[in-house]
Amino acid sequence: MQINIIIAGPRGKMGSEAVRMVHNEEAFELVACIDRKNGGKTLKDIETLPALDVPVFEDPEQCFQEIDADVFIDLTVPEVGFEHTKLALLYDIRPVVGTSGFTKEQIDALEDLSITHGTGCIIAPNFAVGAVLMMQFAKTAANYLPDVEIIEKHHDQKLDAPSGTAVKTAELIRETRESKQQGHPDEQETLDGARGADKDGIHIHSVRLPGLMAHQEVVFGGPGQTLTIKHDSFNRASFMEGVKLSVNKVMTLDKLVYGLENILE
Amino acid sequence: MQINIIIAGPRGKMGSEAVRMVHNEEAFELVACIDRKNGGKTLKDIETLPALDVPVFEDPEQCFQEIDADVFIDLTVPEVGFEHTKLALLYDIRPVVGTSGFTKEQIDALEDLSITHGTGCIIAPNFAVGAVLMMQFAKTAANYLPDVEIIEKHHDQKLDAPSGTAVKTAELIRETRESKQQGHPDEQETLDGARGADKDGIHIHSVRLPGLMAHQEVVFGGPGQTLTIKHDSFNRASFMEGVKLSVNKVMTLDKLVYGLENILE
Amino acid sequence: MQINIIIAGPRGKMGSEAVRMVHNEEAFELVACIDRKNGGKTLKDIETLPALDVPVFEDPEQCFQEIDADVFIDLTVPEVGFEHTKLALLYDIRPVVGTSGFTKEQIDALEDLSITHGTGCIIAPNFAVGAVLMMQFAKTAANYLPDVEIIEKHHDQKLDAPSGTAVKTAELIRETRESKQQGHPDEQETLDGARGADKDGIHIHSVRLPGLMAHQEVVFGGPGQTLTIKHDSFNRASFMEGVKLSVNKVMTLDKLVYGLENILE
Amino acid sequence: MQINIIIAGPRGKMGSEAVRMVHNEEAFELVACIDRKNGGKTLKDIETLPALDVPVFEDPEQCFQEIDADVFIDLTVPEVGFEHTKLALLYDIRPVVGTSGFTKEQIDALEDLSITHGTGCIIAPNFAVGAVLMMQFAKTAANYLPDVEIIEKHHDQKLDAPSGTAVKTAELIRETRESKQQGHPDEQETLDGARGADKDGIHIHSVRLPGLMAHQEVVFGGPGQTLTIKHDSFNRASFMEGVKLSVNKVMTLDKLVYGLENILE
Repeated sequence: MQINIIIAGPRGKMGSEAVRMVHNEEAFELVACIDRKNGGKTLKDIETLPALDVPVFEDPEQCFQEIDADVFIDLTVPEVGFEHTKLALLYDIRPVVGTSGFTKEQIDALEDLSITHGTGCIIAPNFAVGAVLMMQFAKTAANYLPDVEIIEKHHDQKLDAPSGTAVKTAELIRETRESKQQGHPDEQETLDGARGADKDGIHIHSVRLPGLMAHQEVVFGGPGQTLTIKHDSFNRASFMEGVKLSVNKVMTLDKLVYGLENILE
Repeated sequence: MQINIIIAGPRGKMGSEAVRMVHNEEAFELVACIDRKNGGKTLKDIETLPALDVPVFEDPEQCFQEIDADVFIDLTVPEVGFEHTKLALLYDIRPVVGTSGFTKEQIDALEDLSITHGTGCIIAPNFAVGAVLMMQFAKTAANYLPDVEIIEKHHDQKLDAPSGTAVKTAELIRETRESKQQGHPDEQETLDGARGADKDGIHIHSVRLPGLMAHQEVVFGGPGQTLTIKHDSFNRASFMEGVKLSVNKVMTLDKLVYGLENILE
Repeated sequence: MQINIIIAGPRGKMGSEAVRMVHNEEAFELVACIDRKNGGKTLKDIETLPALDVPVFEDPEQCFQEIDADVFIDLTVPEVGFEHTKLALLYDIRPVVGTSGFTKEQIDALEDLSITHGTGCIIAPNFAVGAVLMMQFAKTAANYLPDVEIIEKHHDQKLDAPSGTAVKTAELIRETRESKQQGHPDEQETLDGARGADKDGIHIHSVRLPGLMAHQEVVFGGPGQTLTIKHDSFNRASFMEGVKLSVNKVMTLDKLVYGLENILE
Repeated sequence: MQINIIIAGPRGKMGSEAVRMVHNEEAFELVACIDRKNGGKTLKDIETLPALDVPVFEDPEQCFQEIDADVFIDLTVPEVGFEHTKLALLYDIRPVVGTSGFTKEQIDALEDLSITHGTGCIIAPNFAVGAVLMMQFAKTAANYLPDVEIIEKHHDQKLDAPSGTAVKTAELIRETRESKQQGHPDEQETLDGARGADKDGIHIHSVRLPGLMAHQEVVFGGPGQTLTIKHDSFNRASFMEGVKLSVNKVMTLDKLVYGLENILE
């Protein structure tokens, strides 16, 4: 079975990767794009995009009316993304949306619409399958090996420490285990900061060096053993696995699912 | 609630570790040991064991009759272990058994007995929680990142390569994904063996060096990212977490469970 | 002191990186380029290159005559590179050449010319400082910890295994230690290839996965300890550190040096 | 050639390992021990030591007079160690001493004695060859890749953070490179301590978990690449390589050398 797909935001960083991914995937067919300019053209008229005979629409409603599609991938910004997603659900085209910017009210509204129409919908703040698996595994492992520290390594142009993923991981682990003090109760830092940041008793260490990309390891220790879960992200291509997975999964859903972790079994 | 425990095999490597673990755990109470010698003595009479006033029995049936216990930990050999376990179930004492040596028939017989009596029982070929989690996570990850290789590292006195755990891990991954060729279809080994062993398309690499203990990493790769799950085992203490977990869990069961992975949620 | 530099091959992958590096380095000044086309233009006339007012020459001799330069960086192919280098030495402009393609005779001829003129010259088959350091450290460590294995990991589009760097590393280690059998004398592969390739008794393991770039770790083991030297290469920028280092170093030389390792102290 | 060896401190942790090492090494012969008790006995009379017919002396001078030895290994405490070492030099028996406790004056005095007698002597605060190599390599690498961070991991019973080895490593790197700020100048810790301790601009991160032993990795980053030097120490056996190396090396020396790094070429 072939899945017909519309992509909104084809000129963006994620969008242009998605155009390539859909084009290269045998079971997927790119049938249209929605762009805030270039209406009436085809992709091959737009520089930097693959030379495809795929029509571009500026008006999403016109696109959804004229084009027969199964899935709608939105990789724009939250403001327009919300309107796009609502419209797609009204036209029974299953949305796959990559944004962390929707409000609780917006998500609730989309969920209602999704259920009413019996139309699947996936909203994912993070499409990196490996990172989401790392967090899920860490959450599970903390049940059995409650002593854990997080080391994240990024390029030295990153401004904030620790990374959002590290904090999110600590929060997920915190759902599994109680807050607890780790290390020896009498341990002392002879140099301030040696033991890293403390998030609910979980120590987080942030390394910043030129050459690094985006890396995180979660290390669990118990008597006589350690268990390490490590994710290395080298470029944006890593998100496309999550988009692909979501497209296939949304075909089997009849309501909205929030978060990639909830479609990983 | 305190859990009263009988241990069989207190002088063995695993058994003596278990004696110490049960003694140190606040919620556990060691109430008797079963040993094929030293009947009538107490632990403190036996060299190398902690100086505890715990009675030692040579006859398991006498032990189960006279001692009021909740859980029976068997760390002997499969031949006697099977008889011990059967007897414990008959006396409604929940067995926790660490052996990979039972036959299919023996396990079936114990399962029947367990169900008839409504008495929980756990049989675990591998008590290393970290290793079992590594294998479970690897099995899950292969759903989403089907390209995977295994690197295991052991001390250079190990005779066989690859390790049993590496082969078991490949078999579990194989349940999740189809057998597939990895690497470039035209790849060539300019030195034989460079690409490692091939188990259903999964490459396994075995490193042997003095100084190493028991280590395994499972590396998954997808476009733009890698996910690594790594277990390092330094000594036998690592098994005690699994025994402890099983003792707590068996109290909540009313039938036999085989394999630590089936009590990890 | 400012170093005036001529680059040959500015449109190539390495060459265009070098143009950017020299332009960005405060102590360096790009004074001309040699290209087999575009003679008479300036860099800013050539698409994909920085908009610089730097003259381009097709004839190297004319370039060396007209332009006052301290260093000549050649990133072309060996055939033309040899002629370029010879000419540069005749004009007392110090060559820094990145090629592994020169014959023994060519290198000897350039060395003679270099000594006669008292003009420094560096020829480096590998400009990646980190990789060269890894190999040097490995060679030293093998003196003290003679048990060693090599694990190299590359993307799954690489055709040959093991990598050239892994083989080179084994050869360098071999200069330090005798060929010896590692692992237990009675060890057995239950799956062929598990113990990897054998290069003079050094086992090499080649991992190939999508997402990986170019990685190598050299692991040494001795009683109670392991020492690991690991290099991760993410992109071509890694070579520029070696070019930069060579430019500074060649200013202090009065003869030819072959191999980056021989200018690392 | 066989090397005849006297060991002082045979019942200590290091001493008893050294007795075993010397006994197992074919080219070494244990000819006597110096112990503050057990004078007149032989090793086989002392519990926990190998059953060897090696005489034990309480008076070091008597030992050095009566026993014909090439090398004297001192693994006692600094106070007696100094007297032992002085005496050994007077009797032209080459000392190998494992202590960090000698004062500058004591080392100077021993050096004078060593030179006067033309007798080799090695004093090593750290006998772990792998750790010393790691520090030496780190010092060299910092010349070429000046951006570096240190991650050290130890068991959670360790009281101080960072470890002495991590601080020593940073000090050695500091000899090579200037103090510099690393990371983005505007970087911010959203959780205090995330970026670790700062030792002359080198960030040190200390991980503490049950199960860990003694591990350190020094990570260097440059454009497009990282270089990692990692040492894992599992037990005291790791020191014996350094003792063995020192015994062989001291035979070729005619004066005192301080620090294992100065006999590694």
